[in-house]
Amino acid sequence: MAESEPAWSWPEEKWQSAVAGLRAGRSLKPKKWKGGARALMALGFDCTHEVAALTDGAPTSVRLAEGQYASRQGLPRILRLLKAHGAQATFFYPAVSAMMTPEDVKLVAGAGHEVAACSWIGEDLGLLDHDTAQGLLAGCCDTLERITGARPRGFRATGGALTPALARQLRDNGFIWDASLGADDDPHELLADGEPLGLVEIPHGRTCDDLAYFAAGQPGAPETVFDIFRREMEMAYEEGGVFTLTLHPDLIGKRSRIWILEELLKIARTLPGMRFSTHGELAAACGARGAA
Amino acid sequence: MAESEPAWSWPEEKWQSAVAGLRAGRSLKPKKWKGGARALMALGFDCTHEVAALTDGAPTSVRLAEGQYASRQGLPRILRLLKAHGAQATFFYPAVSAMMTPEDVKLVAGAGHEVAACSWIGEDLGLLDHDTAQGLLAGCCDTLERITGARPRGFRATGGALTPALARQLRDNGFIWDASLGADDDPHELLADGEPLGLVEIPHGRTCDDLAYFAAGQPGAPETVFDIFRREMEMAYEEGGVFTLTLHPDLIGKRSRIWILEELLKIARTLPGMRFSTHGELAAACGARGAA
Amino acid sequence: MAESEPAWSWPEEKWQSAVAGLRAGRSLKPKKWKGGARALMALGFDCTHEVAALTDGAPTSVRLAEGQYASRQGLPRILRLLKAHGAQATFFYPAVSAMMTPEDVKLVAGAGHEVAACSWIGEDLGLLDHDTAQGLLAGCCDTLERITGARPRGFRATGGALTPALARQLRDNGFIWDASLGADDDPHELLADGEPLGLVEIPHGRTCDDLAYFAAGQPGAPETVFDIFRREMEMAYEEGGVFTLTLHPDLIGKRSRIWILEELLKIARTLPGMRFSTHGELAAACGARGAA
Amino acid sequence: MAESEPAWSWPEEKWQSAVAGLRAGRSLKPKKWKGGARALMALGFDCTHEVAALTDGAPTSVRLAEGQYASRQGLPRILRLLKAHGAQATFFYPAVSAMMTPEDVKLVAGAGHEVAACSWIGEDLGLLDHDTAQGLLAGCCDTLERITGARPRGFRATGGALTPALARQLRDNGFIWDASLGADDDPHELLADGEPLGLVEIPHGRTCDDLAYFAAGQPGAPETVFDIFRREMEMAYEEGGVFTLTLHPDLIGKRSRIWILEELLKIARTLPGMRFSTHGELAAACGARGAA
Repeated sequence: MAESEPAWSWPEEKWQSAVAGLRAGRSLKPKKWKGGARALMALGFDCTHEVAALTDGAPTSVRLAEGQYASRQGLPRILRLLKAHGAQATFFYPAVSAMMTPEDVKLVAGAGHEVAACSWIGEDLGLLDHDTAQGLLAGCCDTLERITGARPRGFRATGGALTPALARQLRDNGFIWDASLGADDDPHELLADGEPLGLVEIPHGRTCDDLAYFAAGQPGAPETVFDIFRREMEMAYEEGGVFTLTLHPDLIGKRSRIWILEELLKIARTLPGMRFSTHGELAAACGARGAA
Repeated sequence: MAESEPAWSWPEEKWQSAVAGLRAGRSLKPKKWKGGARALMALGFDCTHEVAALTDGAPTSVRLAEGQYASRQGLPRILRLLKAHGAQATFFYPAVSAMMTPEDVKLVAGAGHEVAACSWIGEDLGLLDHDTAQGLLAGCCDTLERITGARPRGFRATGGALTPALARQLRDNGFIWDASLGADDDPHELLADGEPLGLVEIPHGRTCDDLAYFAAGQPGAPETVFDIFRREMEMAYEEGGVFTLTLHPDLIGKRSRIWILEELLKIARTLPGMRFSTHGELAAACGARGAA
Repeated sequence: MAESEPAWSWPEEKWQSAVAGLRAGRSLKPKKWKGGARALMALGFDCTHEVAALTDGAPTSVRLAEGQYASRQGLPRILRLLKAHGAQATFFYPAVSAMMTPEDVKLVAGAGHEVAACSWIGEDLGLLDHDTAQGLLAGCCDTLERITGARPRGFRATGGALTPALARQLRDNGFIWDASLGADDDPHELLADGEPLGLVEIPHGRTCDDLAYFAAGQPGAPETVFDIFRREMEMAYEEGGVFTLTLHPDLIGKRSRIWILEELLKIARTLPGMRFSTHGELAAACGARGAA
Repeated sequence: MAESEPAWSWPEEKWQSAVAGLRAGRSLKPKKWKGGARALMALGFDCTHEVAALTDGAPTSVRLAEGQYASRQGLPRILRLLKAHGAQATFFYPAVSAMMTPEDVKLVAGAGHEVAACSWIGEDLGLLDHDTAQGLLAGCCDTLERITGARPRGFRATGGALTPALARQLRDNGFIWDASLGADDDPHELLADGEPLGLVEIPHGRTCDDLAYFAAGQPGAPETVFDIFRREMEMAYEEGGVFTLTLHPDLIGKRSRIWILEELLKIARTLPGMRFSTHGELAAACGARGAA
């Protein structure tokens, strides 16, 4: 949507339509959570692993090794912690990443976690034409279903680059939730050009993503990141809302950072009525159509 | 003012005139604040919301969602806090942002806060010719007046890019204060080519703007930002001056950051004689011509 | 490996082979460390000094002076601390850096530390053809052997840019360990196109490298960096693994940072069974072929 | 010195001569400081003010205002603190900056501080031909002498970009010290192509410069910066050396940062034998030729 006309010269319809493409609609936070829960904690793990290095066409050995670290050290540490604290979570896998480490994916699914989709190999699906995107999306779902036995029902766009067309395509492919955008702290409807799409949008904000602090070139302070995540969690709890946290096994899985997740899990368990939830369970609790 | 001649080859008149374009003049801090106040706290909120994403021609869904967060979560949290602490503040709205959320703007004005102008749709008015800028500036004022019932009397330039011509235009349009530049900590005259313009310049420094710490790509530590703002406030209080703080609802409004504003408000109320002030009230206290 | 075809269009063999070039294989962490050690601390110092300024073709006086600081102030402080705490470590020297400060290199070797190779003059050996790389690599080994009396048996690629070809070349030149990649926290086999190379790969992750925090433009907080390194060390100890730390004399050697190393050494000595190890000794403990 | 030939192909003479251009020589730290001092604290203030905005050809009103802040708020705060703690310091003025605020410069000199040179208007003198540089350097010295009554004897190159030719020119113009480079923590000889120049080089490292933390785009944490400066000061004291600190009135002069200087001054006064020194006094204590 690169514009030759500067925005100040646009007629109102033009900026109205630019804004209306995808927009948060009605809140889907229920008046009361099921089963006596007071607030929910929805953990998501982006398992891009080596795929990030492949996608941008510069798979150096350094970056590939950092990707492999995710499966060798990061993922096992995460799974141990989740098990120790009885927490279920959601793991986003590009198909290629799942094909490289199918045993990992089976382990994840076998432990009761949700496996969700994000791409074939890290591509930005919103930039591709419908048929190409359809092929890759279907390939991703087929691959994950073949490995786990269950077809993914949720999605996150690479880099969060969801488009109205892609959102419709997700719905048409049977997805019931998406976790790409950060217009709110709690789940809500997603409107495309003003119409509810029928997808539950689970917030994904940069503040609650370890990538914002620990990506290469952002040597974040673990104590600060913990402080931010803890505050997000505690205010979500006070509000009776959802604390959605996105983590990357290669980033949070480091010896100097994994304690952040452990502390959050410990604190969560001290909060009466705070429940762990997969993204799929959250979507169901928010009344998603077709949710289990 | 890109120069082909290097500055070391300029004659004195040239650098003197480059510097004299806009310059801080006489301090307007009164010897004594009215009503027994010892120092003032002037909060300003930049309500750019989705407009920032539109302006630069790349309105991705991620950035638009971050803009929508400002009105869905950020603004309500801010208004609740201001009400709870009895604080009046100033809200800067581009016209288009106000047109997207007119109920918000009415709520802001109805709660006794000041609504001020900044642009039509985030454009840099100082870069446009006089007539184009006049059209956009008048459009912004008309829009805000239509929604709130009051014509804005104060202004902040997008990116702080005030020019001598734009400053004169502001004065000619009935503005009585501007809050674009950071040449001082306290309000002062604004000189254009050495002549007082009759505008009260209310300082806007990067140190006291959450954008400097929380803008995308600046994952600031909330504890550090609080420490900086607190120190600015406390020294303003010691000096009997003004603590001007600029905040963005999409940035400060996050669950992990809103406490910063709350703590500042709490501390402010413990300081005897510290008073909350809108920018307009501050301009009046500094003897602005035409101020209420 | 810049690709004109986007990764999503690649057949499986293509991404499989891109990933398989160099890959972490079997862990080489022994079930039990020799001599009753419970965990190992392997310190490495990158002695690039002025060479970094020469390599990129912009040897400004500022950058050269920062390089000279490494040998004038950084190295002596480091050697004093290592001696005081009875710690042996590994020092990586480009040949040219060693030729500029041969007395330093003798001092290092004479104190029982290991001297390892990294390049002739900071070049990226993996980008050069076999014969050119061979000449530079041999020149580096010859230079270090002439100064220290011992031929280097370990290597780190500049910028970590190891390639399969370069890894094979290292093995063919008699190297027994490499410390370029960060696929794991503990030593492991290195596979080239699926085949074990016979090199012990000693992990080098950005998290445990002071360059990530203190390089020009990264004005890291010493307290934060200490916190990260300490946590890495303590979890390595808990796991009975290896804490590999990479430091640069020009960065860690500053008056405001050298305490980080001192504190780590002090803490290490309070941990029962934590032993200091050169990289070469570590490779031997991991069963390297041809290790002393 | 952009090179078409990569450094690995250079013959030894080439890199030897690239390194030898300007190099730290013999330490000039005396065995014992005069008058019973145990260590020295040499504060330097870079008074670039609006000149930084002029130099790069983009004097926006925002940047000019930030420059004016230095003289309106930063400098008075600094002078008050130095007076309160009985500390003498050195102030570096480009000629144009001094011409814009001559009363400031007189105040500085009148309070017993040293005024030193750095450029005419922020230009990089090392990039200009000898005669042009001579004209600007002489103009700077003449200007400062006209305002203060004393000819400057010390210099700092803009951006630290000292060259061998410029260093010789400084000596030929009667300068006795330079403070551009950071090859050491304590004063030392400066060698040009191996020959002592007769200038005392007073270290200027990035670690001890507030620009590294507070420059636009580096929103440093005041507590961290204080921690770094304090550690540098304390280790300088332990070593019986010199703590050289470079500050910018527009950066350190902010309400949220000026306390850093105050705390350092307070701590310095608690250290027995720690003495404040101008750069000129320091050069004299190090045996500078022609020093007062």
